[in-house]
Amino acid sequence: MGTSEAVLHVLSGAVPRLFSSDLCSSNLDLVFSSKYHIKSVNKKGSSYMQRFKCSRLARCQIGSYMCKPLGGGLYGNRAIGRLKLLRCKCERAESVSGVGMDEGNGAWFVDSAKKLNLNGSINSPNILEFDAVEQLKREKEGLTSNGTVGTGTSTFHKASVDSIEDEAWELLRDSMVYYCGSPIGTIAANDPTSSNVLNYDQVFIRDFIPSGIAFLLKGEYDIVRNFILHTLQLQSWEKTMDCHSPGQGLMPASFKVRTVPLDGDDSATEEVLDPDFGEAAIGRVAPVDSGLWWIILLRAYGKCSGDLSVQERVDVQTGIKMILRLCLADGFDMFPTLLVTDGSCMIDRRMGIHGHPLEIQALFYSALLCAREMLTPEDGSADLIRALNNRLVALSFHIREYYWIDMRKLNEIYRYKTEEYSYDAVNKFNIYPDQISPWLVEWMPNKGGFLIGNLQPAHMDFRFFSLGNLWAVASGLATTDQSHAILDLIEAKWADLVADMPFKICYPALEGREWQIITGSDPKNTPWSYHNGGSWPTLLWQLTVACMKMNRPEIAAKAISVAEKRISRDKWPEYYDTKKARFIGKQSHLFQTWSIAGYLVAKLLLADPNAAKILTTEEDSELVNAFSCMISANPRRKRGPKSLKQTYIV
Amino acid sequence: MGTSEAVLHVLSGAVPRLFSSDLCSSNLDLVFSSKYHIKSVNKKGSSYMQRFKCSRLARCQIGSYMCKPLGGGLYGNRAIGRLKLLRCKCERAESVSGVGMDEGNGAWFVDSAKKLNLNGSINSPNILEFDAVEQLKREKEGLTSNGTVGTGTSTFHKASVDSIEDEAWELLRDSMVYYCGSPIGTIAANDPTSSNVLNYDQVFIRDFIPSGIAFLLKGEYDIVRNFILHTLQLQSWEKTMDCHSPGQGLMPASFKVRTVPLDGDDSATEEVLDPDFGEAAIGRVAPVDSGLWWIILLRAYGKCSGDLSVQERVDVQTGIKMILRLCLADGFDMFPTLLVTDGSCMIDRRMGIHGHPLEIQALFYSALLCAREMLTPEDGSADLIRALNNRLVALSFHIREYYWIDMRKLNEIYRYKTEEYSYDAVNKFNIYPDQISPWLVEWMPNKGGFLIGNLQPAHMDFRFFSLGNLWAVASGLATTDQSHAILDLIEAKWADLVADMPFKICYPALEGREWQIITGSDPKNTPWSYHNGGSWPTLLWQLTVACMKMNRPEIAAKAISVAEKRISRDKWPEYYDTKKARFIGKQSHLFQTWSIAGYLVAKLLLADPNAAKILTTEEDSELVNAFSCMISANPRRKRGPKSLKQTYIV
Repeated sequence: MGTSEAVLHVLSGAVPRLFSSDLCSSNLDLVFSSKYHIKSVNKKGSSYMQRFKCSRLARCQIGSYMCKPLGGGLYGNRAIGRLKLLRCKCERAESVSGVGMDEGNGAWFVDSAKKLNLNGSINSPNILEFDAVEQLKREKEGLTSNGTVGTGTSTFHKASVDSIEDEAWELLRDSMVYYCGSPIGTIAANDPTSSNVLNYDQVFIRDFIPSGIAFLLKGEYDIVRNFILHTLQLQSWEKTMDCHSPGQGLMPASFKVRTVPLDGDDSATEEVLDPDFGEAAIGRVAPVDSGLWWIILLRAYGKCSGDLSVQERVDVQTGIKMILRLCLADGFDMFPTLLVTDGSCMIDRRMGIHGHPLEIQALFYSALLCAREMLTPEDGSADLIRALNNRLVALSFHIREYYWIDMRKLNEIYRYKTEEYSYDAVNKFNIYPDQISPWLVEWMPNKGGFLIGNLQPAHMDFRFFSLGNLWAVASGLATTDQSHAILDLIEAKWADLVADMPFKICYPALEGREWQIITGSDPKNTPWSYHNGGSWPTLLWQLTVACMKMNRPEIAAKAISVAEKRISRDKWPEYYDTKKARFIGKQSHLFQTWSIAGYLVAKLLLADPNAAKILTTEEDSELVNAFSCMISANPRRKRGPKSLKQTYIV
Repeated sequence: MGTSEAVLHVLSGAVPRLFSSDLCSSNLDLVFSSKYHIKSVNKKGSSYMQRFKCSRLARCQIGSYMCKPLGGGLYGNRAIGRLKLLRCKCERAESVSGVGMDEGNGAWFVDSAKKLNLNGSINSPNILEFDAVEQLKREKEGLTSNGTVGTGTSTFHKASVDSIEDEAWELLRDSMVYYCGSPIGTIAANDPTSSNVLNYDQVFIRDFIPSGIAFLLKGEYDIVRNFILHTLQLQSWEKTMDCHSPGQGLMPASFKVRTVPLDGDDSATEEVLDPDFGEAAIGRVAPVDSGLWWIILLRAYGKCSGDLSVQERVDVQTGIKMILRLCLADGFDMFPTLLVTDGSCMIDRRMGIHGHPLEIQALFYSALLCAREMLTPEDGSADLIRALNNRLVALSFHIREYYWIDMRKLNEIYRYKTEEYSYDAVNKFNIYPDQISPWLVEWMPNKGGFLIGNLQPAHMDFRFFSLGNLWAVASGLATTDQSHAILDLIEAKWADLVADMPFKICYPALEGREWQIITGSDPKNTPWSYHNGGSWPTLLWQLTVACMKMNRPEIAAKAISVAEKRISRDKWPEYYDTKKARFIGKQSHLFQTWSIAGYLVAKLLLADPNAAKILTTEEDSELVNAFSCMISANPRRKRGPKSLKQTYIV
């Protein structure tokens, strides 16, 4: 049975072993004329899914598929030789020979061609087979696959299933997106009630992470492998705005599988992967987090599946290095933190997080540690690894020292002298104590603390940003003491950060004039909505990872039980509004995939805390030593270890 | 006569041909115990100067000087082999042999050693001699030197001198800083009334630019040559904060000549150049503009002196390329503009100009064009030159298209639709029309326009920033029509931008809650003070360059005459406060060197408009062609040339 058939088989649960294109062509129109159908189906939506997949597949000829790159220079020399669109030509296998290989990343196509050349024989031992029939069998029989850190649970077909989890898995599977017959990602939202899709019909890199983790923990590795390798292809893409192409290595924010007419053949179509690097996105924001998440997922794939062949591939190693080079490139900045524009991460609209936002720094640190584990030593990478190690030490010092606040540190800032010109300045960044907002003075608990949202010259953003803090715990960017203090604060501020739905994206909201000035009067980011103090169910999974890392699962369990009270009933919204997360968000999509996947990952980790290890990282002794060396070795650093200690939790 | 003696000769106008160290050692204490003396001398301060130089020189043994680098690794492998402090050892010439050369930039030391080895013979044809005796003679006799673009004026010793200009020249010379007996820069401020010097006793790169131009236009090339070559040495410096060293190529914000005891010899001292890259500066801001100004000054030196040997030197070429590489390095950003933190240029404190501030972009464009003229073609630089050309085209398109506003464009923004997701979005950056401030609606004249201060995702900073606009005219970053429109606006808004003292640094000031939020309640940047709507006399020179470029000298002449009414009487303040620039600035230093030099450059250019050519740049036909190609070639750009034109002034 061919791949495409098998996929349909899995998805529809239908019987026909021979799939005729006629069967599907009758459904072709449904994709675009959806109003009537939308009303007539329920939210489970398996019929959508069928229609969706079917129409997609119907455009390809049944048989074997071959993916090959088609070159197309856009502008200037840099573009020459790069991919213009990653196409999946619907060609017969006979025409495979003579495929043009692209520099660097061409190897994947060999694999793909072999893999998808279903008429031929498969010889390469390197290939993780996508064998839909096998997968179908596994699931039918309730078998778990042989993951290194397997979850041991198989909720999908178990007899005593939790109905919410069942529903979540079903929805997650419905959101799967296929390319040339293989699962390649999950759609951002599968909301039948929304007519305004904007770009919610795309596969977002950051949105796929919890989906990918859920599949990994379930032993379904292929979708993650395909995602990793296909997005790697897109990395070489020419990101362009008005013909400006600022460098390789950036991962797209999202991509879409498009079906387009095949050149010179009216009856045939082909599938193309069309990435968006922010050049079409609202506001033209570049997705700095995409590549960092990609590295984190790649490591998780290896640790979970035990299959290290993916990360060892030359093209994957090159991809890792391209991301690292982009991050570690020399810049003007004095800080070891990454300098980015506003909106370059999960908060992808203007919210005053330009500069050195915590979320990016936590992901950066995490990605550096993950990459360090995966990079194969070779002649050319010594400099990169040295730069990486130096950066890790400088970055962790900088964040732990300057981003950390608790009652003690806050009081210290409150008493800062200003306008200090020297190497030994205590108030290094010339922070005016007036910047300490009244809310913070009240809000800071006696026990606990957190990493502030951003640090710039003369600027501390004291808001609490959840993802940055949670991932600082998960990655070990925060010290052990700091990590516990962050969880202490979450417990102490439960009514603000969890309330009726976990988890507040940031606290507090910008209001009034501050909202006008900092968001530019963004009507989507009104106070206590969306990015501006809205609550995002997907953050459950990062919360759970952090709790598992610190061996405090009860916090995650409590948050999950809060979510379970409403999330399914509310149809898995993207986000909630109001101070206590009482309303489904104003423009919130329903059936948002990462709300679904986030919940599933949280449940899976709760069942098997040990599995969180595929996501967490630890400082090794080498780094710890370098860190303590650094503090004592800096000749210009006059503050002794004692004053240094003050800012930590002892 | 040795160099050091000659210098003293020039400076003090004194007779003794033999200079004894005893003569000076008696003045040693005066450097630090200054209170009494300060009160007893007038502002002309020639006696300060004598004391200053003398005490400095007294610490060196009279004889010959030799500058050599002393290595000193700070941390990690990167630091090893770099300079720690650039030292001028007060050694006898006999001990010169065996000087360790540093990688890359070592050549300079050979020149210096030869030049300063006054007991030896001078053979190198590459060396521009610093011959103080000759210089003294020239000035005494009122001769002008043989500059390619000479000014033809010699105001210093002419019979019919303008007394303000005379005073300015005298003050400028008083501000000269010496290193190993050679002039190397000018001190930031020479204010005898100020006890709080902070870092005003340093040579600031950006502050020296008008001083350097003034000296060039006067035919005094050596100080500029020395400045260029010495700061080049500092470029290799390890810029470090907490041991993080983010890359080579950055020029320091400032440096200081320090006299320190010579190791192992209690009686001897040596001079060291100690740079500051922002790691000691208030707020730890990195000076992105320093390297860009350095390139602009280097080109001006060559064009003015006719001596191209400096820019052709291998170490200088390397220095240019290091700056370019830092600027052109791949980044995450979608924009061709440079991404920087707040306060990375003339406005070096938090003022909400993080991201892509116009000033940096104008200097970047200017430096790219200047570097393009100077780079000697060689095997290794083809890629760099290609990247440079691509960036020039993308940058000019971006600024001309998206930063420009006039009545027409403002009305277009006012009617923007928001939340457009597509490649063809008109409102590409998702600007909410609510961001158009009420002041702007009133302020925008019917005739004229300007480039906005900053463009970010969902963020236009509509403030008028003077230096960015003036340098966009000077460099040709603005089109000819736009350049005239900027000058039209200046004329139309004379009462706001010039008023009682040219030139307002930006308009309008941030006030009230906006000031609190954006500046972090900075007490130095209160409304209509300092960077926040203060008036800076130094901007006269950039205004004059822009006027000369557009052949509208009358605007500059008018502004100069406004300045002349007060500037000398007010003792050459750093800046003025209040909406109409009526008060000398609250914390303004007096005798601020760049106020003095800015005035002199403006006068010199007014007398010889043609001399402005050493500073201005033009787009050549190659770039113009590439530009028009780009607009038509971009397949994703759906807006035709017609709608494009709308945003320009036709």
